[in-house]
Amino acid sequence: MATITAAARWSSPARLQFLTSRRLRFSASSAAPPTSAAGFGWADALRVAGDGGRGDESDLSGYFRKVKTCNRGMDKKGQFVEFSVEDQVVGYIHKGFIEYLRDFHDVFTIVLDNNGSNTVEHVSLHSSLRTPEDRTHAIGSVIKSLGEMIPGIRNELYPVTSSYGMPVYFSLERAAAPYFGIKAYGVHMNGYVEKNGQKFLWIGKRSDVKQTYPGMLDHLVAGGLPYGISCKENIIKECEEEAGIARSISTNAASVGAVSYMDIEGFRYKRDVLFCYDLKLPADFVPNNEDGEVDSFRLIPVPHAANIIRRTEFFKPNCNLVIIDFLFRHGYINPDCRGYLGLLQSLRSGDCS
Amino acid sequence: MATITAAARWSSPARLQFLTSRRLRFSASSAAPPTSAAGFGWADALRVAGDGGRGDESDLSGYFRKVKTCNRGMDKKGQFVEFSVEDQVVGYIHKGFIEYLRDFHDVFTIVLDNNGSNTVEHVSLHSSLRTPEDRTHAIGSVIKSLGEMIPGIRNELYPVTSSYGMPVYFSLERAAAPYFGIKAYGVHMNGYVEKNGQKFLWIGKRSDVKQTYPGMLDHLVAGGLPYGISCKENIIKECEEEAGIARSISTNAASVGAVSYMDIEGFRYKRDVLFCYDLKLPADFVPNNEDGEVDSFRLIPVPHAANIIRRTEFFKPNCNLVIIDFLFRHGYINPDCRGYLGLLQSLRSGDCS
Repeated sequence: MATITAAARWSSPARLQFLTSRRLRFSASSAAPPTSAAGFGWADALRVAGDGGRGDESDLSGYFRKVKTCNRGMDKKGQFVEFSVEDQVVGYIHKGFIEYLRDFHDVFTIVLDNNGSNTVEHVSLHSSLRTPEDRTHAIGSVIKSLGEMIPGIRNELYPVTSSYGMPVYFSLERAAAPYFGIKAYGVHMNGYVEKNGQKFLWIGKRSDVKQTYPGMLDHLVAGGLPYGISCKENIIKECEEEAGIARSISTNAASVGAVSYMDIEGFRYKRDVLFCYDLKLPADFVPNNEDGEVDSFRLIPVPHAANIIRRTEFFKPNCNLVIIDFLFRHGYINPDCRGYLGLLQSLRSGDCS
Repeated sequence: MATITAAARWSSPARLQFLTSRRLRFSASSAAPPTSAAGFGWADALRVAGDGGRGDESDLSGYFRKVKTCNRGMDKKGQFVEFSVEDQVVGYIHKGFIEYLRDFHDVFTIVLDNNGSNTVEHVSLHSSLRTPEDRTHAIGSVIKSLGEMIPGIRNELYPVTSSYGMPVYFSLERAAAPYFGIKAYGVHMNGYVEKNGQKFLWIGKRSDVKQTYPGMLDHLVAGGLPYGISCKENIIKECEEEAGIARSISTNAASVGAVSYMDIEGFRYKRDVLFCYDLKLPADFVPNNEDGEVDSFRLIPVPHAANIIRRTEFFKPNCNLVIIDFLFRHGYINPDCRGYLGLLQSLRSGDCS
């Protein structure tokens, strides 16, 4: 059952227990199909969400687990070396992955330790590549040559800088960014509605045929930040494509901060910074996905969304961080809860710059 | 002119320029008195606030300066040694201040470096002081003995822990906390009103006879977090005392995060963590100070309050951080501004735990 294997990639004991119980249920009813590519449907999510009265509202451990899921492998940082351009560190490359780059003499300069041990000290872009265009083209060719080494090519270019707003050294295929430890930026938006003093979040369920995290829960609008577009313009564009929100409404999306994480898995070193937005929507607004990336939407009371985050792994991992940030900013997480400041700080793990 | 000297304590070039121009103006009109203990009045603040059209909205440097004002002396950390209780570091004490503690053999254990240099390695509370009560009493006596060494005694006890929510080792006079580098916690609240989609902040002007920062601008409600009271109860109490806000309204105050800073000046090592609250007030609400600590209040459009922060030093220094945090969370600071992520991170400088 490929769908369950995909979801189990980042399985915790709680998640496994859920999957096991679903498997049993499927085998009991014999012909029942999985509810979606992620192994759960809205009915499952809403049941967990509304199951109140457990008295665990002040227990932040479920949130901490979600932050941890986005920040794996910190003990493996030593397996990577710095990747620099014009003497500025722009990323990190796994020592094993460097073996695949050795043949590209005119693109990368691989500097060895000067103690004669043949250990790689760092990698830099070849000094003959002087313009952003030359660099973008040269690295693009390398990525093409590597073929299946870097799966999921999207033909979407990300700017490479030392930190946000600084000069762009070159641009890089989005799917390749983690292999070079390049920082990637995104815009994520929580769309919410207020009725009688209660807040509700619009939650999306990703299409079952989406390449990444099919069938999982998501917030209303999110997207990577490609080269040459401002955060504000990007959020307006994504609002239209992902949720059919007209510019007259989406222009009210308010920037509210940022979250970040750092995740190592195999050769991949993810260093992501997500700019967070809130958009208060009219009570009668109904989202309408226009690019086929979302299967369906539901409007969920904020405390119910919080329960789904704490009790399941139904959300796409990094969305958890953005919604936890929303919970902090809107008073749903209480400073008198044990771990409040630790959780708050953990939302900006890694290099938030 | 004592009032100006007080305000000039943390003077920047911009501040000095302002003071100079005011001095000139006073001398020109000869008999004009200073408008308040801080050397400015509401008219001055409102003039700076509303002076738009400078096109400097995306310039974050004024905010950065305010963060810096709260985080001085980081190069002097080496002048302090750890202060521990039960093997847990709870603070830092200046090597010079230790000289005043040497005579209290039964309260402090001063451990020297074991290289025979007579250098103090660290200070711990004497092991014979086993209960929080014994420790509180013993240190209280020391502080009394030190007299004018520690000015501004308030007879307000702060809990001493390694981090928020952890066991309380003892309690300490509020004014003495920085001399022992003890972390101090507070609750700070921005009270705002929304009219026709525009937000306004209620800003207070501190009483001219207040012991600390007389005559300076402040947000609506703030207070230290004393021993034995939750954040929520404290904010409700301060709402009533400082702004006459009834519990039926203040109970809606939403916790929205925290800011922190670390400031070294002479023997004082301030390590403060402020829990931030937002309270949306009814449009017709008018605050009413009940404890004599506030001179007057004004309702100011948020962008005008932002201008006062960026362009003057009229606000009590740590209030700037809490209002800058408000500006971030409510979309008044734009991610496309140079320095956005750096400023955001700087709001939690020091040890936010």
